[in-house]
Amino acid sequence: MSKTMAVNAGSSSLKFQLLEMPEEKVITQGMVERIGMPDAVITIKYGADIEPVRLIGAEEGQISLTKNGGQKYEHVLAIKDHHEAIDIMLQRLSDLGIIKDFQEITGVGHRVVAGGEWFNQSVVVTDEVLAKIDRLAAYAPLHNPANAMGIRAFQKLLPHAISVAVFDTSFHQTMPEKNYLYSLPYEYYARYGARKYGAHGTSHRYVMERAAEKLGIPLKEFNAISLHLGAGASVTAIKNGKSYDTSMGFTPLAGLTMATRSGDVDPSLIYYIQEREGLSNEEMLKVLNTKSGLLGVSTISSDMRDLEDVQETNIHAKLALDMFYDRVIRYAGQYFAELGRVDAIIFTAGIGENDPVTRAKVLNALQFAGVVLDETANNVRGKETVITKPESTVTGLLIPTNEELMIARDVEHLKNNS
Amino acid sequence: MSKTMAVNAGSSSLKFQLLEMPEEKVITQGMVERIGMPDAVITIKYGADIEPVRLIGAEEGQISLTKNGGQKYEHVLAIKDHHEAIDIMLQRLSDLGIIKDFQEITGVGHRVVAGGEWFNQSVVVTDEVLAKIDRLAAYAPLHNPANAMGIRAFQKLLPHAISVAVFDTSFHQTMPEKNYLYSLPYEYYARYGARKYGAHGTSHRYVMERAAEKLGIPLKEFNAISLHLGAGASVTAIKNGKSYDTSMGFTPLAGLTMATRSGDVDPSLIYYIQEREGLSNEEMLKVLNTKSGLLGVSTISSDMRDLEDVQETNIHAKLALDMFYDRVIRYAGQYFAELGRVDAIIFTAGIGENDPVTRAKVLNALQFAGVVLDETANNVRGKETVITKPESTVTGLLIPTNEELMIARDVEHLKNNS
Repeated sequence: MSKTMAVNAGSSSLKFQLLEMPEEKVITQGMVERIGMPDAVITIKYGADIEPVRLIGAEEGQISLTKNGGQKYEHVLAIKDHHEAIDIMLQRLSDLGIIKDFQEITGVGHRVVAGGEWFNQSVVVTDEVLAKIDRLAAYAPLHNPANAMGIRAFQKLLPHAISVAVFDTSFHQTMPEKNYLYSLPYEYYARYGARKYGAHGTSHRYVMERAAEKLGIPLKEFNAISLHLGAGASVTAIKNGKSYDTSMGFTPLAGLTMATRSGDVDPSLIYYIQEREGLSNEEMLKVLNTKSGLLGVSTISSDMRDLEDVQETNIHAKLALDMFYDRVIRYAGQYFAELGRVDAIIFTAGIGENDPVTRAKVLNALQFAGVVLDETANNVRGKETVITKPESTVTGLLIPTNEELMIARDVEHLKNNS
Repeated sequence: MSKTMAVNAGSSSLKFQLLEMPEEKVITQGMVERIGMPDAVITIKYGADIEPVRLIGAEEGQISLTKNGGQKYEHVLAIKDHHEAIDIMLQRLSDLGIIKDFQEITGVGHRVVAGGEWFNQSVVVTDEVLAKIDRLAAYAPLHNPANAMGIRAFQKLLPHAISVAVFDTSFHQTMPEKNYLYSLPYEYYARYGARKYGAHGTSHRYVMERAAEKLGIPLKEFNAISLHLGAGASVTAIKNGKSYDTSMGFTPLAGLTMATRSGDVDPSLIYYIQEREGLSNEEMLKVLNTKSGLLGVSTISSDMRDLEDVQETNIHAKLALDMFYDRVIRYAGQYFAELGRVDAIIFTAGIGENDPVTRAKVLNALQFAGVVLDETANNVRGKETVITKPESTVTGLLIPTNEELMIARDVEHLKNNS
């Protein structure tokens, strides 16, 4: 019995979850935000409740009861870097009695955004692995350096624990060449690795495994369309238990309409707009990543729920929603054609788990392929559920994702097999 | 009984076809190439044969017999502009006895590439129409100015003939907002018309009408997926006899893998390559339009036939072909999901009409929707044919396109109704 920490380090934030393994029990989760600022915030939730509760006036370390009887600790303080953030966070876990001894944490699994073609699975972090993560920063300039900082800090603070890198992209390394290549001069692939890498791999892998298990289909024979629909959203075609195609591309900008990301756009149009708006490439890329998607079309919000609330009276909100549904349907349709046979259509992540409307739109659009929605069953949120009728040719599933658990499992697996 | 000329004017070329209307009989066709050069070439084919035959040593006007017993006239000479090109061409038609009097030509229909949101159908060219075509040059800088030059020259030389503009985009003006908009800030649509316009509209419209007629389905109830697969290639979802979605975008760069065009690419990747190659936006756009697609991936040829010839031994050629098939299948699948019910899948243009392999790949990929290929029937080139078996839920059709005839029909229609 030991504890494994799943970590997602950003440039100024760090999220974590601590699990008892192999029991897969979540002991605590929390985050440090505004790292590098005089008013950084550390939040730790533990006990029965791990639902977020807003605390007011948290100028110093406070512990409050949450609505489900759990506890939440929050502290605002100056934190200069990731190392300090992790140091303080581990101290607090000890102070709060969540861990007794740092030795209990025997493994730390880190989410790493870009794994390029070097990593087709999770790996124990060595110096060579770290060097590669650094070099892959070209593919994820905002993320990989932060991920590497998190890894280095934990290695110093918990030198006894196994350190594992879990890549967003590695699940998609099984895509065939015809799917991962763009129709660009081949030399760009050879020279710069210009290809589709995809993302959300840990999530797609998790829900795939859950779905295959639930349906009693051996993973090696399992074909599915996995829809990870959150603020970032991607669809993956799974063939024989492996990623066969995915909607995100060289970066997570491509594919679906997302909260603030554009998804697919005619490249000519980008240049046309840039020229007229006088935007540099960098500025245009920022527009595509942060001002487009649901926010760009609706002009009011990047949040589906806000748009659903006003869609009756606000045509822009309705349009943004219709475009979102439509783009998901397009990808579901194209992956149906790519796969030929589909065992399951899996919905996960924020929207996928909590929005019955999106799920119904997608499944109803696939009636031509014999998909039959179960409206009653579909009227559910965040709970593993079969949402198609027994006569449906394909089983529709809602599977809440759990990337932290997947990371912890990879750590456990590598601890026992390396 | 009168003659109608269908014209496609490029920046340094002009293609034409003269039809007897309303009999729809092709009398002659030809082209002027290298307009503006001292060695421009005028070619006119007439008589029984309108298949191209290469002439050697055509320093002056020559008439040769073609293999089918028709005749071909070719002349190399200096031609300074479109006006002169058309003037000489009309003189030659008269000299060759193809027309007796210019008055016989009662209508001229011009292909115009960009019609923006102003034109949802073909129109008689007025000064206002010409001004709009000029203004729409922003959307098609290489094409609209040339199209306008052709219109102006014909208006001067054949002032008695009705002049009609037939737009590549107008058929797609029926697309719903959710399909023609990109997930970009809405202001770009409002300010610059940043949206999907599509292309190949005249071809998609022609084959749609033929297919509906052939199947005896009223156009108003006709749902189809139309695949125009040539050097430029696009797929259109047709709902109730109208364009509902199409794979080309703001420009004809988007969508499928084409002969030299990239089709869809993650915009982030474009910038990534540009930066590393030191390419300006204009240079990158040129790469995407002229060095990508089949040519870019195969590194050897933009022509499907060349690739098919060597695919057994050349992995790049095979890869390019596989990508081409795959992208067509993706769009067929997504439009199936968008439409729900599909009556026909129509193949047309160079590849669509002449490549049984592509047709088989696409139809076999749609087996999950009950599509059943008829392999024997599919083994055909360039002939109107049903290529699915009777039990197929959707009828697969090969329909040779005829944009010139569609243009002539539009001229005829407007002559009688304006």
